Amino acid sequence: MSDTMNRAWTMTSRPEGEPAPDNFGLVESPIPEARHGEVLIRSLYMSLDPYMRGRMRGGPSYAATLEIGDIMTGEVVARVEQSESPLYKIGDIVRSSIGWQEWAAVSAHDVTRVDDKLGPISTAVGALGMPGMTAYFGLLEVLKPRAGDTLVVSAASGAVGAVVGQIGKINGCFVIGIAGSDEKCKYIVDELGFDGSINYKTQDVSAELARLSPTGVDVYFDNVGGPVTDAVLENLALKARVAICGQVSQYNANPANPSTGPRNLGVLTRVRGTVEGFLVYDFQLQHEIARGRISNWIKDGRIKYKEDIVDGFENAPQAFIGLLRGENFGKLLVKISDE
Amino acid sequence: MSDTMNRAWTMTSRPEGEPAPDNFGLVESPIPEARHGEVLIRSLYMSLDPYMRGRMRGGPSYAATLEIGDIMTGEVVARVEQSESPLYKIGDIVRSSIGWQEWAAVSAHDVTRVDDKLGPISTAVGALGMPGMTAYFGLLEVLKPRAGDTLVVSAASGAVGAVVGQIGKINGCFVIGIAGSDEKCKYIVDELGFDGSINYKTQDVSAELARLSPTGVDVYFDNVGGPVTDAVLENLALKARVAICGQVSQYNANPANPSTGPRNLGVLTRVRGTVEGFLVYDFQLQHEIARGRISNWIKDGRIKYKEDIVDGFENAPQAFIGLLRGENFGKLLVKISDE
Repeated sequence: MSDTMNRAWTMTSRPEGEPAPDNFGLVESPIPEARHGEVLIRSLYMSLDPYMRGRMRGGPSYAATLEIGDIMTGEVVARVEQSESPLYKIGDIVRSSIGWQEWAAVSAHDVTRVDDKLGPISTAVGALGMPGMTAYFGLLEVLKPRAGDTLVVSAASGAVGAVVGQIGKINGCFVIGIAGSDEKCKYIVDELGFDGSINYKTQDVSAELARLSPTGVDVYFDNVGGPVTDAVLENLALKARVAICGQVSQYNANPANPSTGPRNLGVLTRVRGTVEGFLVYDFQLQHEIARGRISNWIKDGRIKYKEDIVDGFENAPQAFIGLLRGENFGKLLVKISDE
Repeated sequence: MSDTMNRAWTMTSRPEGEPAPDNFGLVESPIPEARHGEVLIRSLYMSLDPYMRGRMRGGPSYAATLEIGDIMTGEVVARVEQSESPLYKIGDIVRSSIGWQEWAAVSAHDVTRVDDKLGPISTAVGALGMPGMTAYFGLLEVLKPRAGDTLVVSAASGAVGAVVGQIGKINGCFVIGIAGSDEKCKYIVDELGFDGSINYKTQDVSAELARLSPTGVDVYFDNVGGPVTDAVLENLALKARVAICGQVSQYNANPANPSTGPRNLGVLTRVRGTVEGFLVYDFQLQHEIARGRISNWIKDGRIKYKEDIVDGFENAPQAFIGLLRGENFGKLLVKISDE
């Protein structure tokens, strides 16, 4: 890493199916200077999240998609290294959506202060950041579980799923997590306090759900879609609610040749169920409330989080490819420079 | 037809795929006598509805499924021919779920009086019966459209769809109906006042929806499922609502080898949409209110209905097979005896 040059990862071509290293290109440019009203920030931690795969695809999305040559979308925790704004001083820790890059000069209005009294700064893109907000609002505002409800969450050991399950426990739910390894399954039960777990790679998800919760699934927080979701739909209880948060099993599907599955929406008539999609940004006005609550629950020990930290900016593409395969264990971060 | 014998259609075997005539058997038995508290009724009109296919299948359903040898499920409009109850007298017109049969002796509590001041008695199993109630509550209580919303309804010329679209017009919606022939498409626009129509057999449903409603589909009343529904999902507007009423395109699918389609629930995240299943019986407490309103709208000329009346009890199985193929045009009834 040079002290005078900035590095950024760009999308050099659109992936077909799973992204490959040659879809990404590392470009260098001089470290910019902050102009009036701007701050120069240096990335400490970069968040890698499944939604980024959607930005690499053309076609309709809830956000602008990337063009060839664009810097990969993403949010970092960064330190202010130069400030031409009265709002920030050197050394302040901020969050900003500068994409996959080491340095950036941005308007002071495009960064958000990170309050390190709420938790370690890395959590500003994890349990106290977008993934934590997603879990909080998807569960409490979309699914609205009641004590006694059976809550199922997929990708249960991930950045979102782990928080969903633990807030479910705080709310008195019976919580079943679905994950992709025995180690992850053991973790969510033994460490996070889930009531049950299912390894979707080795177990029959539908049969296990029926065994663990004979009264069915009242609320399902869906991070994955695909066959796992089919299996949950088969087990819905009367008046069940499903929140569509992510569909990571589908993100590498080719739009021209999509992944297919049973046409099982008819089950919603049988159980009078509801499926609802949501985005974390729809609840932006309430994010600070949720951030404070999750922070308190972390301090109380009622919410635990696990970080999977990859060292080195140059390793970001490979880590992202692994994320889409479920190879990470906990919130995936790239450490770019020392705190 | 004998004057001393009753006839009934039973399920002699479970259909695999489309029902065939040999799945049905005609059995004769003596006309019963009403005992204390019962009425003997004679069927005038029998309703044929797609949900009956579900009763012929084993496995989970919202209602008990038929066993081999059981009389086919169904509702009739009938006349009281003998009464051993103070509640009814000979000549009263009633509705009752006696199944596919000509005569039955049933408890007076298992029949419902038909008020012929509300409309012709045949409508007691049509626009003023279960199909009309389904349309009313699915639209007004589940989808809750607002004036200006684009409402799409599939199976639009059918017993449910035609009422959905017309109540949508009364509510100020822009209404697009999807149907299976040019004749049906012409009917829903020219006779029922829909704003647009799409023939799913000859037109590209997704492209036509985009053309007819460039702002997308706000509310979709789904009677069919399958590729038609896929095309509507592609066109959902922000905060769109979908009601799953029926999935008739899927009813003949073999559960062991289900029909498949794209895994498109991810669109719900993009548009923050909701899909909800419902059953007409969930709104039973309010049925009389709805019946009165639909009756008034029929008298005002704001709701029209079309009946497809097949003459003769012996023709019921063939008419039902045709119903699942979309061969009927309007509410399908079997006329069993003269009013």
